[in-house]
Amino acid sequence: MRILGLDPSLSSTGWGVIEIENNRVKYIADGFIPTDNKAPIEERLKEINKVLCEVIEAYKPDEASIEQVFLNSNPTSTIKLGMARGVVIMTPAQYGISVTEYEPTKVKKAVVGVGRAEKAQVETMVKILLPGCKPKNNDSADALAIALCHFQYRNAYGIKK
Amino acid sequence: MRILGLDPSLSSTGWGVIEIENNRVKYIADGFIPTDNKAPIEERLKEINKVLCEVIEAYKPDEASIEQVFLNSNPTSTIKLGMARGVVIMTPAQYGISVTEYEPTKVKKAVVGVGRAEKAQVETMVKILLPGCKPKNNDSADALAIALCHFQYRNAYGIKK
Repeated sequence: MRILGLDPSLSSTGWGVIEIENNRVKYIADGFIPTDNKAPIEERLKEINKVLCEVIEAYKPDEASIEQVFLNSNPTSTIKLGMARGVVIMTPAQYGISVTEYEPTKVKKAVVGVGRAEKAQVETMVKILLPGCKPKNNDSADALAIALCHFQYRNAYGIKK
Repeated sequence: MRILGLDPSLSSTGWGVIEIENNRVKYIADGFIPTDNKAPIEERLKEINKVLCEVIEAYKPDEASIEQVFLNSNPTSTIKLGMARGVVIMTPAQYGISVTEYEPTKVKKAVVGVGRAEKAQVETMVKILLPGCKPKNNDSADALAIALCHFQYRNAYGIKK
């Protein structure tokens, strides 16, 4: 069973795929989707959707998970993040893949053990939990953490949307 | 030349298509995309994208226009609107159709003549400017107003993104 983790943002959406076999977890792939900040926003969103479709077709995840949104105090930033998030959450649904949302503190707690962990701690734990994995950058490390969080919660509580 | 006007919202995205021939404008079609507020958000976004694709394939617009976002003081509402908006603005781009954004006051000014018009005034003017058109609801009337606004501005200023 494969899980796709997603960390949406307009400038660089992170993604990560892990595999579960006999209740053990294995690293499959990770990456991020940089977009040109000089391009029209609709082109950037189209690029995010296009690359995510390629990721889904290449790695065939069974379930997806996404971090619940960080509500920025700046409404213009919030709307931009919302736009990226809308496209990111819709894309797995286009393939019939369920998407589960997790609060940022839940993701950190699942991976590091505390809800207020630093980014570097998250990345370190992702590397420990997924031997052989060297996340491409912070965004893809976060995406792998989100996938690991979903693995833990779906196991512990049988979470299904 | 056909223009698609778009008024995005998660619960009911309005759309309207007008045609320009010899600098005269004609009503082609309008509608709205209601989504089930009990369904997961990704399914609602998928529905918006799916119906908009059908609209684009049926009416083959050459250009699209969308209202610039109303920044809600409630961040949760802002993010939801952002999610819908992201999907709505991306969909014409998937067909290579340019999208131009207009401030709400500009849309009202273009259609009614003043920037602070009531919804009912907008609908009345849409009916006058597009003889034979009976907008399906407020959302599709707004979408037709946005299309009319784009017609005026692209004519007046040769606006192209």
